[in-house]
Amino acid sequence: MLTAEENKRITRVGPGTPGGEYLRRFWWPACLSSELPENDGAPLRVRLLGEDLVAFRDTQGKVGLVDAYCPHRRAPLFFGRNEECGLRCVYHGWKFDRNGTCVDMPSEPAGTTLQAKVKLNAYPVVENGGLVWAYMGPKEEQPPEPNYEWLRAPPDKRHVSKTFENCNWLQGLEGGLDTAHSSFAHNNHLEDMSVLRQRDKSPRIDVERTDYGYTYVSRRDMGEEGTYVRAYQYLMPSQQMRANTIGWFGGRNVIPRLDGHIWVPIDDTKTFVYNWFCVYDQTIDLPPEWIEKRQAEMGRGSQDMIPGTFRLKRNQSNDYLIDRQVQKTQTFTGITGINTQDFALQEGMGPICDRSKEFLGTSDKAVVAMRRLLLEAIDTVQKGGRPRGTDPESYRLVRPHDRIVPPGQDWRPIFEKELVARW
Amino acid sequence: MLTAEENKRITRVGPGTPGGEYLRRFWWPACLSSELPENDGAPLRVRLLGEDLVAFRDTQGKVGLVDAYCPHRRAPLFFGRNEECGLRCVYHGWKFDRNGTCVDMPSEPAGTTLQAKVKLNAYPVVENGGLVWAYMGPKEEQPPEPNYEWLRAPPDKRHVSKTFENCNWLQGLEGGLDTAHSSFAHNNHLEDMSVLRQRDKSPRIDVERTDYGYTYVSRRDMGEEGTYVRAYQYLMPSQQMRANTIGWFGGRNVIPRLDGHIWVPIDDTKTFVYNWFCVYDQTIDLPPEWIEKRQAEMGRGSQDMIPGTFRLKRNQSNDYLIDRQVQKTQTFTGITGINTQDFALQEGMGPICDRSKEFLGTSDKAVVAMRRLLLEAIDTVQKGGRPRGTDPESYRLVRPHDRIVPPGQDWRPIFEKELVARW
Amino acid sequence: MLTAEENKRITRVGPGTPGGEYLRRFWWPACLSSELPENDGAPLRVRLLGEDLVAFRDTQGKVGLVDAYCPHRRAPLFFGRNEECGLRCVYHGWKFDRNGTCVDMPSEPAGTTLQAKVKLNAYPVVENGGLVWAYMGPKEEQPPEPNYEWLRAPPDKRHVSKTFENCNWLQGLEGGLDTAHSSFAHNNHLEDMSVLRQRDKSPRIDVERTDYGYTYVSRRDMGEEGTYVRAYQYLMPSQQMRANTIGWFGGRNVIPRLDGHIWVPIDDTKTFVYNWFCVYDQTIDLPPEWIEKRQAEMGRGSQDMIPGTFRLKRNQSNDYLIDRQVQKTQTFTGITGINTQDFALQEGMGPICDRSKEFLGTSDKAVVAMRRLLLEAIDTVQKGGRPRGTDPESYRLVRPHDRIVPPGQDWRPIFEKELVARW
Repeated sequence: MLTAEENKRITRVGPGTPGGEYLRRFWWPACLSSELPENDGAPLRVRLLGEDLVAFRDTQGKVGLVDAYCPHRRAPLFFGRNEECGLRCVYHGWKFDRNGTCVDMPSEPAGTTLQAKVKLNAYPVVENGGLVWAYMGPKEEQPPEPNYEWLRAPPDKRHVSKTFENCNWLQGLEGGLDTAHSSFAHNNHLEDMSVLRQRDKSPRIDVERTDYGYTYVSRRDMGEEGTYVRAYQYLMPSQQMRANTIGWFGGRNVIPRLDGHIWVPIDDTKTFVYNWFCVYDQTIDLPPEWIEKRQAEMGRGSQDMIPGTFRLKRNQSNDYLIDRQVQKTQTFTGITGINTQDFALQEGMGPICDRSKEFLGTSDKAVVAMRRLLLEAIDTVQKGGRPRGTDPESYRLVRPHDRIVPPGQDWRPIFEKELVARW
Repeated sequence: MLTAEENKRITRVGPGTPGGEYLRRFWWPACLSSELPENDGAPLRVRLLGEDLVAFRDTQGKVGLVDAYCPHRRAPLFFGRNEECGLRCVYHGWKFDRNGTCVDMPSEPAGTTLQAKVKLNAYPVVENGGLVWAYMGPKEEQPPEPNYEWLRAPPDKRHVSKTFENCNWLQGLEGGLDTAHSSFAHNNHLEDMSVLRQRDKSPRIDVERTDYGYTYVSRRDMGEEGTYVRAYQYLMPSQQMRANTIGWFGGRNVIPRLDGHIWVPIDDTKTFVYNWFCVYDQTIDLPPEWIEKRQAEMGRGSQDMIPGTFRLKRNQSNDYLIDRQVQKTQTFTGITGINTQDFALQEGMGPICDRSKEFLGTSDKAVVAMRRLLLEAIDTVQKGGRPRGTDPESYRLVRPHDRIVPPGQDWRPIFEKELVARW
Repeated sequence: MLTAEENKRITRVGPGTPGGEYLRRFWWPACLSSELPENDGAPLRVRLLGEDLVAFRDTQGKVGLVDAYCPHRRAPLFFGRNEECGLRCVYHGWKFDRNGTCVDMPSEPAGTTLQAKVKLNAYPVVENGGLVWAYMGPKEEQPPEPNYEWLRAPPDKRHVSKTFENCNWLQGLEGGLDTAHSSFAHNNHLEDMSVLRQRDKSPRIDVERTDYGYTYVSRRDMGEEGTYVRAYQYLMPSQQMRANTIGWFGGRNVIPRLDGHIWVPIDDTKTFVYNWFCVYDQTIDLPPEWIEKRQAEMGRGSQDMIPGTFRLKRNQSNDYLIDRQVQKTQTFTGITGINTQDFALQEGMGPICDRSKEFLGTSDKAVVAMRRLLLEAIDTVQKGGRPRGTDPESYRLVRPHDRIVPPGQDWRPIFEKELVARW
């Protein structure tokens, strides 16, 4: 559990809050590249870390991410004209390029000195891996561009999507780092004891701190077959990587790959979850129809979404279409879709979970370790220091792994070479 | 009128508030028994006195009423599995029985000492009269089970229903205790002067304090016929009993019976009204079709409700479908349904009525007396005492009555023997 | 820009706020006369300057504007019976005339002294120009009835309508006083350089203070044709008058007339805009079909409104149906309807614009002058003085004008005689 004060410190994301100042030391996904499909296309509303922004792709294809309001009289730039490498406010025609420089001020007399003085707040942006990444922190602390392994995989071996979650980001991250719940919340085959996580529901957990966060290893006893070992990665502040080289079904129907999420705070009580995966290595194909099948299994296939949004049809307003008969006989939750199950539990905790009323067990080791790392890092930033995990060198070669280790063998030497990036 | 401070004290119901602490000394209806129709069925969300709870009927048919969130990591127990005499959280499989004892903790290693330490908050529950009653106060102050007369009537002579009201509970209670308004708000036959309440619109009122609250007598002059006398009962904190042995129509089409309401605070600004009635004595039948007719007359017949809810179709969002032409020519309000008329007026006062701006008359005697009793009782509890009306012996034999008393006769000796329970 | 404190002072309208006390020194439109179409008809909910009121037209056709709640027990008077020169509460039948005097109290015994003591708060009301005007300030400061020129024009030469705007009133007023934006936001013919405002987008602006507010003159260079001069009027606190004797199109298809708006605060974050126009003088007809055409051009024609409301179909919830292709090729905003364009920009600033983050230019001269006048007037009232513009003599003869002034001529003597009322 956390004190009420710690809980506030770790969950709040707005500018000027301790947590918000810490989170602003990292690059964050602001939107999918596909949300800005064409040069000089319609601007896009972006809310990120509690700030209202507008993104636009300019004439050269470069993305700008700027304040939602014109600095002149605060008119909304979402209605602006995206034209000739700049966004022009439609109130008085003031125009700003993607760096926030005012490049035209037609409502003022020619030769006005005002134009040079006005500045639209603009954040540095890079595009990589199908995402638009933004840095919203102090200029002098800006880290090099994000460089995760999956960003280096070729586009046809990789996939990125995004879903809206109606609660504080930390509830999502905690669910991701919590391996124990998958034996319960994601138990979708109540009677099938061949599923690995069914056979040992209280795994042994080790957490090892690293320069970027931690590596987290769970071991489940598979009897004569040996030990099912999963090594996850937690990359601070908000990304998790896990392997599906063998999967819960012992390799049946699995395309070996790496999966991950980044839980991106929209504000204190809303989150966009970015979901990525890339295949294990160059030898593996990624059939397009498999992608839709995989997304549907997670509960976010094309049929599962409210068209034109990133929201699930199965959501809070309809109790996630829980089927109590299915819950009695087939699946643990009666809710369809693996991530939908997560959302039901995480959103069901309320907008910001009250962690002062928890009662934690040994299965919560990873959650506890993550919170401690975050609170320490928030302190570090408050004291003027640079937090763990901003330097891409610390995480560039990081990847997760999972495997059944035969009886009597040590998992460590086997995993050591597998936990190194192949892309 | 009340001071702003008194108004706050008397209306707020949450844990830790003076009013809330007082109200927690009584048993409250948590839901209808019929909302939990089967053993091991779906859990039910309950919000009561500002607390979020979950009710479930276990394998033995006993009802549990517990916190809405698992004490482990605050996952919502509404999505839980109701199985083998307990509710199992679907996040990590922790299971609790209806007393809140943790009976299984599969995510922790066998032999964990954690299981004995964890407790889910659970409230004592009894089922009686088609209702699930809960006690949410201090253990040492728990009164014996509720024992109102109507709870002792056999099920086929009795009926209970429930309706949602979108305002603070006290506005509902005040309407119930206010006999004067029925000559106006419920005047549904503008021209029919044979209706008793039409013939004298400013009744004489007497309020007599009792151990459970008060008896309240209104007398209306019926001319040569005598005096129409109604004796109500107010059972603290929130129940009213009134008789319909003769009714406003002088006995026409009336099945002699006792009626009542309990106004149950969902939270500070929302209320469930539980509506009950039972026939006068064993000699009287209760035709099932009469029940629907009676409910429709009150505005809560099966055709009046939004299906699957306890909400009226005629509500704030559509101005209760007021018909101004009907209001001009047929009924005083132009609104159909006796309780719908009450809701229009009570909800129309706003979420919590501002009683610091009132101007009370002699017709408000009962309302004033009730407020004084409540404020005194809140003080009593604040000072560590036991408030009036918790002991069932104080109200066990209480019933209301109404009758036309012939000219020249004293109503008191007539009523004395009629105000004693027959069930 | 304003300080955060000034911004609060100038935008808040509720009773007891400095801005609210100032605004209460003026007559305000409470509703259209047509919203109370018949004597003894249904009461109308009115929210004005943050106060909840009810308007009703009594048996004699006079309008009452009273508190929304009965002073007895705070029942909503909206459900009241409007009968025989008074509004009767349907809770206990208390009846009040349009002055707030209690004229009947049937729930109390005959001869009660209570009736004389109870008073329903009622505001003075006058009807003029198709509007119901109310005065909500201190009795001793009540000014004579409003007497704008357009109120004296005959009904068939005049038109009044009303539209809902979802933001603070000052955002609306600022848009009205800001001539520069019309060259941009209202540029609906991107390629047509014959439109006057297209030919000079940074007009010279002069603001001259008057007893009622200011006269505001913009001059645009029309080359060989001379100078396009527009003289607006700002009548404190919230009315603007502008001329369309020639219009942006140089007289093409224009019926010479005067136009205006009054931005009426519903509360701090909602506004009703009253839109009026009247023809220039007695020689000009007003074809009824022209009115609908004109309203449609502004975006508030009968097809543009949500039936039964004063709300636009093109609104915040659908991004005003902006068409980005039209924005690229035909109009500056891609939004249809001149006032719809204003609403998109003004509502898009948020409920209350944060003026502490502005960066003003020379084109904002009129806006700056208006704010200064308002802040001074608020101070005046706070210090016990009488603010500018309450006396109808100060504005009775005021009208606006626009014209192209030939090269070399001084606009002042030409305008002098044109800025005097003809009605």
